[in-house]
Amino acid sequence: MIKAGIVGATGYAGAELVRLLSGHPQAQVAAISSVSFEGQPLSDIYPAYFHCCDRVCGTQEEVVEQSDVVFAALPHGLSQELAAQCYAAGKVFIDLGADFRLENEADYQQWYGGSFRYPELHDLAVYALPELFREQIRGRKIIANPGCYTTAVPLALAPALKNGYIENEGIIADCKSGVTGAGRKLTQNTHYPELNEGLSAYKVASHRHTPEMEQSLSHVAGQPVKLTFVPHLLPVNRGILATCYARLKPGITLEQLEQAYQAQYENEYFIRLLPKGKEADIKNVRYSNFCDISLHVDLRTNTFIAISAIDNMVKGAAGQAIQNMNLAFGLEETTGLKLFPPAF
Amino acid sequence: MIKAGIVGATGYAGAELVRLLSGHPQAQVAAISSVSFEGQPLSDIYPAYFHCCDRVCGTQEEVVEQSDVVFAALPHGLSQELAAQCYAAGKVFIDLGADFRLENEADYQQWYGGSFRYPELHDLAVYALPELFREQIRGRKIIANPGCYTTAVPLALAPALKNGYIENEGIIADCKSGVTGAGRKLTQNTHYPELNEGLSAYKVASHRHTPEMEQSLSHVAGQPVKLTFVPHLLPVNRGILATCYARLKPGITLEQLEQAYQAQYENEYFIRLLPKGKEADIKNVRYSNFCDISLHVDLRTNTFIAISAIDNMVKGAAGQAIQNMNLAFGLEETTGLKLFPPAF
Amino acid sequence: MIKAGIVGATGYAGAELVRLLSGHPQAQVAAISSVSFEGQPLSDIYPAYFHCCDRVCGTQEEVVEQSDVVFAALPHGLSQELAAQCYAAGKVFIDLGADFRLENEADYQQWYGGSFRYPELHDLAVYALPELFREQIRGRKIIANPGCYTTAVPLALAPALKNGYIENEGIIADCKSGVTGAGRKLTQNTHYPELNEGLSAYKVASHRHTPEMEQSLSHVAGQPVKLTFVPHLLPVNRGILATCYARLKPGITLEQLEQAYQAQYENEYFIRLLPKGKEADIKNVRYSNFCDISLHVDLRTNTFIAISAIDNMVKGAAGQAIQNMNLAFGLEETTGLKLFPPAF
Amino acid sequence: MIKAGIVGATGYAGAELVRLLSGHPQAQVAAISSVSFEGQPLSDIYPAYFHCCDRVCGTQEEVVEQSDVVFAALPHGLSQELAAQCYAAGKVFIDLGADFRLENEADYQQWYGGSFRYPELHDLAVYALPELFREQIRGRKIIANPGCYTTAVPLALAPALKNGYIENEGIIADCKSGVTGAGRKLTQNTHYPELNEGLSAYKVASHRHTPEMEQSLSHVAGQPVKLTFVPHLLPVNRGILATCYARLKPGITLEQLEQAYQAQYENEYFIRLLPKGKEADIKNVRYSNFCDISLHVDLRTNTFIAISAIDNMVKGAAGQAIQNMNLAFGLEETTGLKLFPPAF
Repeated sequence: MIKAGIVGATGYAGAELVRLLSGHPQAQVAAISSVSFEGQPLSDIYPAYFHCCDRVCGTQEEVVEQSDVVFAALPHGLSQELAAQCYAAGKVFIDLGADFRLENEADYQQWYGGSFRYPELHDLAVYALPELFREQIRGRKIIANPGCYTTAVPLALAPALKNGYIENEGIIADCKSGVTGAGRKLTQNTHYPELNEGLSAYKVASHRHTPEMEQSLSHVAGQPVKLTFVPHLLPVNRGILATCYARLKPGITLEQLEQAYQAQYENEYFIRLLPKGKEADIKNVRYSNFCDISLHVDLRTNTFIAISAIDNMVKGAAGQAIQNMNLAFGLEETTGLKLFPPAF
Repeated sequence: MIKAGIVGATGYAGAELVRLLSGHPQAQVAAISSVSFEGQPLSDIYPAYFHCCDRVCGTQEEVVEQSDVVFAALPHGLSQELAAQCYAAGKVFIDLGADFRLENEADYQQWYGGSFRYPELHDLAVYALPELFREQIRGRKIIANPGCYTTAVPLALAPALKNGYIENEGIIADCKSGVTGAGRKLTQNTHYPELNEGLSAYKVASHRHTPEMEQSLSHVAGQPVKLTFVPHLLPVNRGILATCYARLKPGITLEQLEQAYQAQYENEYFIRLLPKGKEADIKNVRYSNFCDISLHVDLRTNTFIAISAIDNMVKGAAGQAIQNMNLAFGLEETTGLKLFPPAF
Repeated sequence: MIKAGIVGATGYAGAELVRLLSGHPQAQVAAISSVSFEGQPLSDIYPAYFHCCDRVCGTQEEVVEQSDVVFAALPHGLSQELAAQCYAAGKVFIDLGADFRLENEADYQQWYGGSFRYPELHDLAVYALPELFREQIRGRKIIANPGCYTTAVPLALAPALKNGYIENEGIIADCKSGVTGAGRKLTQNTHYPELNEGLSAYKVASHRHTPEMEQSLSHVAGQPVKLTFVPHLLPVNRGILATCYARLKPGITLEQLEQAYQAQYENEYFIRLLPKGKEADIKNVRYSNFCDISLHVDLRTNTFIAISAIDNMVKGAAGQAIQNMNLAFGLEETTGLKLFPPAF
Repeated sequence: MIKAGIVGATGYAGAELVRLLSGHPQAQVAAISSVSFEGQPLSDIYPAYFHCCDRVCGTQEEVVEQSDVVFAALPHGLSQELAAQCYAAGKVFIDLGADFRLENEADYQQWYGGSFRYPELHDLAVYALPELFREQIRGRKIIANPGCYTTAVPLALAPALKNGYIENEGIIADCKSGVTGAGRKLTQNTHYPELNEGLSAYKVASHRHTPEMEQSLSHVAGQPVKLTFVPHLLPVNRGILATCYARLKPGITLEQLEQAYQAQYENEYFIRLLPKGKEADIKNVRYSNFCDISLHVDLRTNTFIAISAIDNMVKGAAGQAIQNMNLAFGLEETTGLKLFPPAF
């Protein structure tokens, strides 16, 4: 039984990890920590967890000590020190934050404003989007779990780019996210009466997930890919819908694209390629680790449209982190993650 | 492995049964049927189920033949014939409809407008709210699964009535239900733009669940109980909140009530008595089989207030049906039902 | 043209006053103030108001000086001093807070924890629920505008109590409020992901509006009325639904009740008595000053059920405050308030 | 006083026209009709309208006879005959449907499947998006009111195209619409439990509004414009957000774009150009005739992003229709339409 610890368990991603790990047959939560709620049971913060997880929040140190794998769900910038501690102690470290996601320190400095404090750890770390980079993940000790948008967009576009079916310039990722993506912290724009019945974009063409998407897609394409990324805040709790647009290379047909996606994803349990004529819908992936993808072509304008839907808290955070834990520990990748999405 | 069949699998309760049974370690869905969608895969109707349950809807006859237990999720009035078939074939029959819930045929005629077609089956049937009537359920072959309101209200009031701590006249059950309770059938009042941002009562003091609640509470109290029941339609998908009011008998205190509830429910996995100062919230029980209960007293008016929250589709329908299946087949009652409610 | 000033204009009630006054033909906003946002245009806080009200928030003193009528939308306890200033300056003062609502200082101390700092102003003040106490309001200079629940519940029950058709003990007011009632201040339970898809009661039998309702209903009944009041927080923006229960006096029929309500309210523009068989719905009164009322009787239990619906920000706050301004200034009471509620 | 008639008054656009006309100082509803609800008061269908509009639905003929202007809110294809009747009777005809929107009959046949039955009426008709084509509208008798998406997208892009600041190929319009856009007709995907908490695209690159947008933008650009249009169905009642992407011509800056928009729209009451750093939000235009527009540039990819927000039922339907009525009758264009959007 793998002993799992969660640092930052009272944030949304941490809480979701606790919930999903409770259904994992080969791992169990061994310790949780929270700076803000140390000494309080998790069910005080989340009454839904009453009788299911009344475990008391301890310290980060206790988590490291008592766990085989440490999940970090911390604000950006706080994971590097913890990674060093875990590495020194021989623990597997899975970071749900951004500290180890960007390979290029200059990008990190530009978008996050910090530097790589332990460059040798960055060399050891792996960017862990399993469906695209599975082979690099196995056996790693420092695992950078992708962000939510940066799971949805690369999965939607990878086969088309890899096969050279679309231009790698002029790509648009118009994304819509449920509110849990903004976290538990109170802000005016997530205050119920001010978000309800609303919709707007935010951080237009300036969101920090941009370089991370470009990094993944450039690896896949084998050449630099840049894109325009505009996220929107949606008045629903969970889900990301990524509507991605790219210019088709001359002569490429929808059938070729469908075959390329089929070929790349046919053995991926968590990717559901939808039948022709269906559109990916965040409703259909909620509470599951699935990524639904639908493919479309606008023949009038020669535009490829790939739409992906994930649950931002599962495939976009805690579920994928457990998928990576499974990989790191040599378990069947889907263990504890065959979650059947409710219809309503 | 118990072979479970579902007649009426494309309605909301049927679809929820399919989903919940997929996580049951000792039962599996063996057959499903639908009159409206015969020949179509269930995932055509519920795209969330794609790759999770692509099983094709067959006929009622096929379900009966291929199953050890038949769940019926049918409009009222259609279950009696099916019950007779199942009984003749030696199958366990669990009815999510109302045909076998009322013991008194006159009540059934008054509230549902039909008669008991197989009186001998009604004698064999049991009303199966496990936390109140567990001992009668074991070994039964015809099981009437309670309705949603009729789970929430009796669980909220039973210990107070059983102990004679409240008057059995003048009880009010002000209930609020999520929209799935109204089913999949299209109606103007469940059309998104006309329900969203709204709230109203419906079937004021005339809802068919009234006699069923009274029947349960009268059994518990050992004398006739009548109540006023007003349901409201809430713009959320899932959940029932039952706010129940009753006059306290002289001298009864909140502490006595808490002790009575504690005593009756302390070994009930699915009932969570909330700590003093908390209020039951439908948010905290969603996607779980829990019934949360909070107890309050208005000292100024000598009024007892018990509030219960359930997920109408789980504890109020499919989850409780599986709980009854477990009981009927001698399994641990919580098998497949230790569902951890998400916090968001 | 009446010059209207608003102290506390950046709270929800203040902002709604600005919006509604913009459509008033005989009043105009002359000054607004805000402690938190002094020096900022109101449209910075509410981008919906861009180009409609870009007026800059000034000080309380400026508002008093520049206005004929001062609306105070302040936290409880802060209005008394302002009332004294306004009174000294000869201005009409309309308080949307609770400082002048309770006639009995002991009640105020018990429920709000403060004392009457200017007892002589309390003698001059009037509790201004026009449909019940219109005659006392005309010509007053200090006007206590009722709270939201305390508008909905007394209007639902007044004719029944006044005519002695119901018992004045054992009354239950089960109320459900939209989130704007909780104000603009950020709290965890109004954070979008934690309220959405939820419903719970709060301040069970301990909400401060209780004595205010009892005060109004006692006046109407001519004898002391006590009730049990349980509010619920609803995941919609606007609206209060009050489902009120009372025991019918022997022999009283629904027809008698309907006639009593008809008689009392037939000339009230803002009260819509619904036809038999309809239920009041908060959806139908949104953005209007209407109070919809439906009447029901449970013959099985001899219970009277009156359901009222208002928009908590209009009839429950800003709209009623303007109605009172109209009364105080001798205008037609409906001036600027014949708001046609949208259907969706 | 202009006598206004509405054919198809019980649909959403028709009902919104009734509501908005009730606040118009120089027009009044003279007659309404409905095929489905003939003989019933409008408030039976929309209880929100009780006491505000209890007018009984008559026939189309009565509407034509009793009105100076006839608004048609009919399914596509039914307006042409009515237009002919109105024209013969000397009435102004304002069509909220699509029959007169496309100038090119081949486009109409391709996208709507019908032909121009009265070509001479099409010659007389005008496509009436006032901010772009005001001069052609005055004095016309047959007015094609634009659709909702086809208002939001052209307004967002017109100044950039007119000034030649963006490429007229490769334009993407990623749009999100509230549910009222789908109308009052019941469908499974607008059934509350199946839309709530969901989001998906629909009619990807195949929506009928595509040629209408292209027609407007081609006129503005002075050369053919094609675009890719993907609409999404949003779980809110009202509003359209159009996120539009285009490639910047070399050397064009955000400042130049801002100046072009400022120059074109500075005297347009209904267009609010947002200050730099703000994003258009559907919440801020609800229940108003405003179109909010925010401008953004992605310097990394040389992409122009224009975001517009309208209320689909007001500026996208009934409000704009009244704006066109004002133009047709020589009234001040904003008459009855200076609607102050609520903040919540």
